[in-house]
Amino acid sequence: MDIVQCLICGRDREWDVFDPFCPDCHEPVLFQRPDRKRHIHLSQPLALASYADFLPLSGVDPALSLSEGDTPLLPLPRLSRELGITIWAKNESVNPTWSFKDRGTTVVVQKAVSLGLKKIGTVSTGNMAASTAAYGARAGLKTFVLVKEDTSPEKILAAAVHRPVLMAVRGDYGELFRRSFELGRKHGIYFANSVDPLRLEGYKITGFEIFNQMGSRPPEVLVVPVSAGGHFIGLARAFLDLREEGLFSHLPLLVGVQAAGCAPLAKAFAEEKKTFERFPHPSTIAQAISNTNPPGGNIVLKLVRELGGTILAVSDEEMLEAQRMLAEKEGLFCLPDSATVLAGLIKLQDMTPLKPRDQAVLVITGTGLKNLHVFDSAPAAATHIDLDELGDTLAAFLEEP
Amino acid sequence: MDIVQCLICGRDREWDVFDPFCPDCHEPVLFQRPDRKRHIHLSQPLALASYADFLPLSGVDPALSLSEGDTPLLPLPRLSRELGITIWAKNESVNPTWSFKDRGTTVVVQKAVSLGLKKIGTVSTGNMAASTAAYGARAGLKTFVLVKEDTSPEKILAAAVHRPVLMAVRGDYGELFRRSFELGRKHGIYFANSVDPLRLEGYKITGFEIFNQMGSRPPEVLVVPVSAGGHFIGLARAFLDLREEGLFSHLPLLVGVQAAGCAPLAKAFAEEKKTFERFPHPSTIAQAISNTNPPGGNIVLKLVRELGGTILAVSDEEMLEAQRMLAEKEGLFCLPDSATVLAGLIKLQDMTPLKPRDQAVLVITGTGLKNLHVFDSAPAAATHIDLDELGDTLAAFLEEP
Repeated sequence: MDIVQCLICGRDREWDVFDPFCPDCHEPVLFQRPDRKRHIHLSQPLALASYADFLPLSGVDPALSLSEGDTPLLPLPRLSRELGITIWAKNESVNPTWSFKDRGTTVVVQKAVSLGLKKIGTVSTGNMAASTAAYGARAGLKTFVLVKEDTSPEKILAAAVHRPVLMAVRGDYGELFRRSFELGRKHGIYFANSVDPLRLEGYKITGFEIFNQMGSRPPEVLVVPVSAGGHFIGLARAFLDLREEGLFSHLPLLVGVQAAGCAPLAKAFAEEKKTFERFPHPSTIAQAISNTNPPGGNIVLKLVRELGGTILAVSDEEMLEAQRMLAEKEGLFCLPDSATVLAGLIKLQDMTPLKPRDQAVLVITGTGLKNLHVFDSAPAAATHIDLDELGDTLAAFLEEP
Repeated sequence: MDIVQCLICGRDREWDVFDPFCPDCHEPVLFQRPDRKRHIHLSQPLALASYADFLPLSGVDPALSLSEGDTPLLPLPRLSRELGITIWAKNESVNPTWSFKDRGTTVVVQKAVSLGLKKIGTVSTGNMAASTAAYGARAGLKTFVLVKEDTSPEKILAAAVHRPVLMAVRGDYGELFRRSFELGRKHGIYFANSVDPLRLEGYKITGFEIFNQMGSRPPEVLVVPVSAGGHFIGLARAFLDLREEGLFSHLPLLVGVQAAGCAPLAKAFAEEKKTFERFPHPSTIAQAISNTNPPGGNIVLKLVRELGGTILAVSDEEMLEAQRMLAEKEGLFCLPDSATVLAGLIKLQDMTPLKPRDQAVLVITGTGLKNLHVFDSAPAAATHIDLDELGDTLAAFLEEP
């Protein structure tokens, strides 16, 4: 029997696959830690299996996995020199559907199949739609993907290729999110949305990998974009789990970054509030992290308050500049939504001088290919020439500094 | 001193970074095998370092790598059941720029930097442009990317983000390819194009990984798309290298797949010719493998003839159907150009019955995200509804078989 807990009021209850919220305070629930000692088994080929002790799964079926995880922790030598501390990128864009969402979806699907469920679903603005559609297809589950009406054709297509039941829904997104659980219970569809507790368990593995890749120690600083809050909560829990196993005593400084144009949590944190308010009039290019009413928001605020950490907001200009820096200096092409982590680190340095020996890990959440149109491409166009102009044009470029 | 060899005439010479062709027969040259015993060192964090014994590099600088390789060998359980043999996908779409090209580019850049070169370049129709731009940026090299005039804005942008010198050139592509080497020598730019011998060395690592991931044995069948020929040659060399070290005696059946609408090598192979002819009037949706005059083509034909293997052609319809099968049954979204490998395996089974215990590896070369528009999306569109229609619409979908 799986027990979940509300981190806000502390109440325990049996996990209900169709309702991931606390009946009292309506906050998302998290799986409770087991009572036994947990171990890491690095010899396993799948990341899921290496950390199975830390997950609420009774087993791992490789046929359901797309070999997610085991992503590189990439040194960023040029940015490290510029910023004066050691910076690493945890590159989640090389997951099977090219975003961190696969970490969560794989746990959801393992559990759904083990419970004999035949239908899963998700409500998403993009990456989670493609991820859920892919894993649902692989497992042979009937998969329901509900997206916002104005989702771009590219994002719809990236989910549609796996042929889920795909609906673009006009109406309030928060209401759609809520209704999905009602309909899920009625029809036996496990809707694993942004703060589903099994998704959060999957995100923990990213934290475990960072710990191992750094040589069995946590970084001093961990920076991650914050939208619904699930990714942040999962990463925080990873380091809490490891600390509980006695593997270290100091947690990383947990830094969540939001888009200034939609920053309900950064605002609440700055105002030292325990709960956030819905963000009015959102306006940002970072669509993947534009959530006016993040369901995991109050838990994020609690974790940051209790564990030490901060939530920052960066402007669209700052994230585009950070996207450019990552692409031009380190060869990493990510979404502006992901590049918020570098913009956030730069902002953090202005506020809190970090020590030169500190190590910061930036979690790069998804590939830049999923939204080519927001890249600041004005200075990056190709020069169109005829073949017989090639020699002269090349020579001209060589004379540039 | 690095010695390269022409596989066609057997002539050896010192490697010339500015000229990857045999002066006598104008075929691309390959690095000669060293005279020493080579070993695999799996404990290294970078794939490049694990197989350094097999590469013409004196060392590996992690700062220049984007942590390419170490890609999953993914079981395809549902397709295995349907086709009656065990099928694996070597998923190269989770490389740093989301295609197999990174395998080659990383070796090129390691060598360029070790030689003190400051400028690299490539002539490409897409994936190689983005890969070279990314690695060049990371290494701080001045990087020249020459693309065909009609390259899609998406592909240009995916390279442009790393801010290379980027030129879209009107005129004959074969002539552009040739001219790049002349200009490279003149200006000290190392143009690492499709059949550059260092790229081929990088592609070997994919073969080494497959060998290790299968439990230190080769698969019975290895299927790879063939365009310029470099990827095929590199993979074949990997298994030749391992056989030479005494690790097994039987090579995999090497299966190269081309698009029927541009299949100079499949045609030459079917006609039992030693050399191919330029393919007239190419017409296929598989732009990434549409090469009418593949520079490595005659070496591919020689390898297939001598080692046992075949070159097949599949129609656009067959590759779209294979793309659909991989996405809907296994959760893998690749380009039609990549899906040729599944279409090729199905065709191979019609020609040569494989044994039920045979294991086939399909090399999935790149992400479907790089060309969303060729996916056969007609049956995959979203249903647009209002929120208050959600309950009824969902119920209607549930009544479908």
